[in-house]
Amino acid sequence: MKKNAVLAIAGATGLVGNEMISILNESKMQFGQVRLLASENSKGEIYSVCGEEVAVEVLDEMSFDGVDYALFATDAELSKQYVPVAVKAGAVAIDNSSHFRMQEGIPLVVPEVNPDSIGDNKIIANPNCSTIQLVPVLHAIRSVSSLKRVVVSTYQSVSGAGKGGLDELWEQTRDILNMKEVKSEAFAHQIAFNCIPQIDVILEDGYSKEEYKIINESRKILSLPELAITATAVRVPVLHAHAESVNIELHDEVSLEDLCSVLLDAPGIELHADHSDYPMQISSASDDMIHVGRIRRDRSLKCGFDLWIVADNIRKGAALNAVQILERLA
Amino acid sequence: MKKNAVLAIAGATGLVGNEMISILNESKMQFGQVRLLASENSKGEIYSVCGEEVAVEVLDEMSFDGVDYALFATDAELSKQYVPVAVKAGAVAIDNSSHFRMQEGIPLVVPEVNPDSIGDNKIIANPNCSTIQLVPVLHAIRSVSSLKRVVVSTYQSVSGAGKGGLDELWEQTRDILNMKEVKSEAFAHQIAFNCIPQIDVILEDGYSKEEYKIINESRKILSLPELAITATAVRVPVLHAHAESVNIELHDEVSLEDLCSVLLDAPGIELHADHSDYPMQISSASDDMIHVGRIRRDRSLKCGFDLWIVADNIRKGAALNAVQILERLA
Repeated sequence: MKKNAVLAIAGATGLVGNEMISILNESKMQFGQVRLLASENSKGEIYSVCGEEVAVEVLDEMSFDGVDYALFATDAELSKQYVPVAVKAGAVAIDNSSHFRMQEGIPLVVPEVNPDSIGDNKIIANPNCSTIQLVPVLHAIRSVSSLKRVVVSTYQSVSGAGKGGLDELWEQTRDILNMKEVKSEAFAHQIAFNCIPQIDVILEDGYSKEEYKIINESRKILSLPELAITATAVRVPVLHAHAESVNIELHDEVSLEDLCSVLLDAPGIELHADHSDYPMQISSASDDMIHVGRIRRDRSLKCGFDLWIVADNIRKGAALNAVQILERLA
Repeated sequence: MKKNAVLAIAGATGLVGNEMISILNESKMQFGQVRLLASENSKGEIYSVCGEEVAVEVLDEMSFDGVDYALFATDAELSKQYVPVAVKAGAVAIDNSSHFRMQEGIPLVVPEVNPDSIGDNKIIANPNCSTIQLVPVLHAIRSVSSLKRVVVSTYQSVSGAGKGGLDELWEQTRDILNMKEVKSEAFAHQIAFNCIPQIDVILEDGYSKEEYKIINESRKILSLPELAITATAVRVPVLHAHAESVNIELHDEVSLEDLCSVLLDAPGIELHADHSDYPMQISSASDDMIHVGRIRRDRSLKCGFDLWIVADNIRKGAALNAVQILERLA
């Protein structure tokens, strides 16, 4: 990395932006300057970043002058507007929004899987949280057999909808315990004591955009454009971390022992091989690992497995992935 | 049904027993006498059943003398002990526990699917709740194509663990909001704001007993002993009703329209064909129907579909199924 480089974090005051700051503070990365950019609402808030006290500035067209690296923890609209501004100013941008992910020529990177695709691109896209925790597992498994088909059902926490999602689950829960009427704003329906089988917009063919993110982003990151994969994305009344029930069919005969062995060795993955020691959302929050448990042979297939994957969607599934991309921009 | 028949309900004071009483009260069924049987704890509690005030008696070896029909809403141990007593006393027993379900010669019945298997058997087994809401859907679909493979991931409410499960979710939720320590008794781990990927015991091969119930009971009810089916059973912090994310592969080419058409006509099923009008647990509680939504073509298969099935596990998935079997014992 360039000495005395200038780093900007756009959307620094959201859940993902905050977590990026935490990870940078835990790391040994040093910058000449860090700029924190957000909306007018957060202007002047002070964060401690890499040993300096930094005041939040308002994100605007001039924010990226002199910036070398820009982490975007913004939504698709803001990324669409400001990533090109950052690049024009000479920065390399790592964008957490969905806007650039599926664009041809833009690498979509999970460092455990396809770090080489970073190359000398000026825009690098960070995948969706539910993709980031799935793809390293599929990547490890394909080292012992090519993938025939993948079926995913998700159990996604409200933190995926940002601070508004967290607040809504708390408030609805409190209102229900106090027998008050429940109001829904962050979600289309009551999420407290309920599962909502919709994340993002549902398209005409019946899939939601979140489901297509899992499908299409996995294909792109794994360079398997024809991978047979389907997904059902469900929001559950859990605060932090996403879980996924995943059924994987393989082309070759692979033993459970061999599968466990590659998962044990895979970077970023912690295998819970003991059946009773399964990972859960409450035990995986604020954690850097992708936890895999409940792994067992699916006897309905010649060779297939069921497994249960859990990771903190904000930390591992967004912020850490982006910071690890930044670390590789030598 | 025999005139002036005597009906006994064993385990009448549990969630399923209570719901059986509610359904009998809503029905036009008449009995000469109804006996409510439970443990010493509930002795003397008064319930209104079919127009009579009935005091709960203690379940014992003499409880079934003169009884024609016995509904068992008891656990496997109690059913193992008392169902033979009821049969010896001349009763036909409908048992909701797992004890007899997989025994050869004992019919396992979902009235929408295999009513004829009731025959003149003296013991009829009521399937597991998560099976009851799945099998009518599979049965309707196989009228247009034989089933090639089924992958199920469940989102099961705490009511499946009885009153203790409901109390535990409430109490843990209240304790967390009050920043108190959480105690787990009904479940192995904290269920409030968490998903637990274990229901019933996990066996040596990695499947849980609940998952095997879904697999083996579906095969038996559908008379498809070789059906390729796998399941992952997960407890979610929801009070009532179970949801299931189901992927179905078919042998023949079937259009989405044809699939919707058979589901629209199927007894006991309510199809939510509009993508935005999906069923949820909060909207399906206390309901008699199996709700099917989010139905869409799985493009990773030559012919396959993803769907989302929701039903009240206590009412539809246990009590109503048992009472409908009782109604057929003409």
